[in-house]
Amino acid sequence: MPVQRISRQLTAALRYRRSATIDHNRIAFVLGMQLLVLTVFMVPPAATDLIAGNPDWQVFAGSAFVTGFLGLMLVTISRGAMGYGISVREGFMLTVLSWVCLSVVAAIPFWLLEEEIGLSAVDAWFESVSGLTTTGSTVIIGLDALPPGILLWRSIIQWVGGLGVVMMAILMLPFLRVGGMQLFQLESSERGEKFVPRAGELMSLLALTYVALTATCTAAYVWAGMTTFDAINHAMTTLATGGYSTHDASFGYFPEPAIHWVATIFMFAGSLPLLLFAKAVKSGSLKVWNDDQVKAHTKIVLTVIFGLTVWYMIKTGAGPLEALRVVSLNTVSVITTTGFALGDYTIWAPGAAGVFFVLMFIGGCSGSTTGAMKTFRLQIMTITAFSYLKRLISPNRVVVSAYGGRQITGDVSAAVLAFVSVMFATVMLFTVALSFFDLDFVTALSAVTTAVTNVGPGLGTTVGPAGNFSTLPDGAKVLLSIAMLLGRLEFFTVLVVFSRDFWR
Amino acid sequence: MPVQRISRQLTAALRYRRSATIDHNRIAFVLGMQLLVLTVFMVPPAATDLIAGNPDWQVFAGSAFVTGFLGLMLVTISRGAMGYGISVREGFMLTVLSWVCLSVVAAIPFWLLEEEIGLSAVDAWFESVSGLTTTGSTVIIGLDALPPGILLWRSIIQWVGGLGVVMMAILMLPFLRVGGMQLFQLESSERGEKFVPRAGELMSLLALTYVALTATCTAAYVWAGMTTFDAINHAMTTLATGGYSTHDASFGYFPEPAIHWVATIFMFAGSLPLLLFAKAVKSGSLKVWNDDQVKAHTKIVLTVIFGLTVWYMIKTGAGPLEALRVVSLNTVSVITTTGFALGDYTIWAPGAAGVFFVLMFIGGCSGSTTGAMKTFRLQIMTITAFSYLKRLISPNRVVVSAYGGRQITGDVSAAVLAFVSVMFATVMLFTVALSFFDLDFVTALSAVTTAVTNVGPGLGTTVGPAGNFSTLPDGAKVLLSIAMLLGRLEFFTVLVVFSRDFWR
Repeated sequence: MPVQRISRQLTAALRYRRSATIDHNRIAFVLGMQLLVLTVFMVPPAATDLIAGNPDWQVFAGSAFVTGFLGLMLVTISRGAMGYGISVREGFMLTVLSWVCLSVVAAIPFWLLEEEIGLSAVDAWFESVSGLTTTGSTVIIGLDALPPGILLWRSIIQWVGGLGVVMMAILMLPFLRVGGMQLFQLESSERGEKFVPRAGELMSLLALTYVALTATCTAAYVWAGMTTFDAINHAMTTLATGGYSTHDASFGYFPEPAIHWVATIFMFAGSLPLLLFAKAVKSGSLKVWNDDQVKAHTKIVLTVIFGLTVWYMIKTGAGPLEALRVVSLNTVSVITTTGFALGDYTIWAPGAAGVFFVLMFIGGCSGSTTGAMKTFRLQIMTITAFSYLKRLISPNRVVVSAYGGRQITGDVSAAVLAFVSVMFATVMLFTVALSFFDLDFVTALSAVTTAVTNVGPGLGTTVGPAGNFSTLPDGAKVLLSIAMLLGRLEFFTVLVVFSRDFWR
Repeated sequence: MPVQRISRQLTAALRYRRSATIDHNRIAFVLGMQLLVLTVFMVPPAATDLIAGNPDWQVFAGSAFVTGFLGLMLVTISRGAMGYGISVREGFMLTVLSWVCLSVVAAIPFWLLEEEIGLSAVDAWFESVSGLTTTGSTVIIGLDALPPGILLWRSIIQWVGGLGVVMMAILMLPFLRVGGMQLFQLESSERGEKFVPRAGELMSLLALTYVALTATCTAAYVWAGMTTFDAINHAMTTLATGGYSTHDASFGYFPEPAIHWVATIFMFAGSLPLLLFAKAVKSGSLKVWNDDQVKAHTKIVLTVIFGLTVWYMIKTGAGPLEALRVVSLNTVSVITTTGFALGDYTIWAPGAAGVFFVLMFIGGCSGSTTGAMKTFRLQIMTITAFSYLKRLISPNRVVVSAYGGRQITGDVSAAVLAFVSVMFATVMLFTVALSFFDLDFVTALSAVTTAVTNVGPGLGTTVGPAGNFSTLPDGAKVLLSIAMLLGRLEFFTVLVVFSRDFWR
């Protein structure tokens, strides 16, 4: 199949269509294409291990063969995607299926390396889901001793997952109107018929920006003192706000303050809307950063850093520069749902765990790789609360609220409030479920929260920044993997597919 | 002032009025009346101590004198309430002021008894707020050794607070449309002009029902083996779903299984709409219990009891009857936000704390003395979530949802979702605030949650069922008192009064 035809069909498959039918060929085609992309990304780990003289390259070659075969098969049986657009039901189904299928396929290398890294099938899927959803919780102990191929694979799936999240947030979720994302529907000039050529362009633009940022971050890490291999890996997981590291001690492994600052700066960059970087370069102006959400997010981050720096200085007696550096890396890491750790921040003070628990829920901007509530939902919630208060005081008053130049309709408010309610309900229900596995309260609650918000480390000795998820029972790992996917897909995408109405 | 005139003016003061003005006289009048009622309730503790030959009777006599003087002064300066009804703004202001003023005045006896029970002014206010809001967290250690008067006072303020909550939920909150309570607006025949005679009738009907239930519960406790004094006290705090006990060990003090079952049954009774008991008696039929909310609440309680009984038997090896009794008392106690404890339920198993943490959020029916989310909100949330899912699948479909024979408008859904969001936001913010007092994560989070949901005991060794709030720093006690009031007043009632728009 010629490349041009594939490209044309892919963009056609991403056009929107008003219809309730599900075309299985179209779904097979898009899934197949995704598998082929994943196959390509299995080459670097194979090459790395081959160059390092490690026999693991065969595992990646084998995984690539299986993945590529599956991908080609799906693309072939789909007989090419039809020219009409995608329906709402297909959108939901495709989104959920993509993440589930990719997480299973990306787990193959972990599972095949069982003897080396000791992961069961459940462990392998957990590690893969945690990677693709850019969560960053790990069940592998002894990262420092692992061959380069598998370390690179972990970083790559986070990086690919991060780009996938951004594309989903820009191309799919606004169309599906999940969790208030309808606010971010592309301007009319970018929608409708004209969207067809734009979809392909947008995707390449986003990918290019992502690559450029990752390259810059890699260079910065090398400049700050990392080895090239560490720099590439950490750059990928920094921009993805994922948090996988090549060392068990995460950033505690690197003593260089410059490295800590590079991490802080690029995690923050990863929490900004990816598209704005492209727009800033294209327009050659900094004006694009004058954005409601970016400003609010920056304010939140700076306020928290300031408050915790003062607190850290009082509690530990550290100097201002050291305090600022340690606090900045750890708080930016948690707020942006990355999950890198510089020491165990939960032991700064008796109350530190409580503060970091709450920070887990914040997240970054929409259209970034971050998880959790995200800044725009915090803003909509605040605006909704205030207009609600106004209407309580004067029941007959008409209150019009706006956000980013668009009117906040009742639909958007309801979607955001529904998102928040369902997020907390999910945390509650999964905490109860995990409690039956004899996990203590802090482990159960924080493991669920860190999974749902895609942060990575939880609290306590087991799943905290100094711990590891490997000792959890298998059932708990499966539940947490589901929680990560639920959070990443903004809950409703998954709930819709599992609702009875969807299948009527 | 002749009694009849007072009664006429009180009902007139509770009629609704469309206007944005605040009449300070009216507020002074209602507050004054409430203080006079509280004065009357200071007589039994004084009498009890006088009969017991305890000099504390002077404290209650003094408190009654101060409270009565303040009440009379307010009623007098208000020159009687005017004949027109109450406005929305007055409603908010009156509700908030009532709870704050009463909690301060009810704290006077605790504070005057400083030497005996060692409470500071902050402690006294905390104990008083915890009582009036029917929370039941205590800062007093050594209840068993206290004179009867002060024990009776603790029970009485919970009992009065419970009745106050029900009256507020029936007469005030639906009118203020807070947290979806507009669903419970009285039928048109009971509103408008005809409401004037009804308000007085309703209030006496509720009070009579409450007294009758409390008397029945007292008799049941005596029959089951309690002393009359313990029976009266526990009956009051059982029906109020408050949780104050006359013993440090709470129900762990009573070995009799019959006592445990009486507690379980009457806590459950306290979590049902008080008005339905009156209706059941008046109609002489059990049909009134065929109510959406009552059925859902019963299902939730029975399901949790069943699940936890099985779990408890597996974990502790207890027999089915013992397991059912221990589990029933503790789960009904937490779900109904009462807070009685029979042993430390958080140590049943490693995961027990997690389960009970989640149970804290449930609550009972609207129009009962319970706190937390309440059954109807759980139902509205479920209905809203399903209709939201339906609209995500078919964006142009019109979905009509009903609850208890009334259509759920967007307003009700939004109000319930706003309630849930604000409740969790409050838990988060107060947890951070408490963390700065060097409280560990579990203590901070569970103390805030148990305060906001008006349950009583938290988790962990400090504030758990086997602990006590007395060792917390003063600042934490003040924050928790505010959290109890916020939760009791359904958040928005307080937020409205503190919003800038309210004072414009």
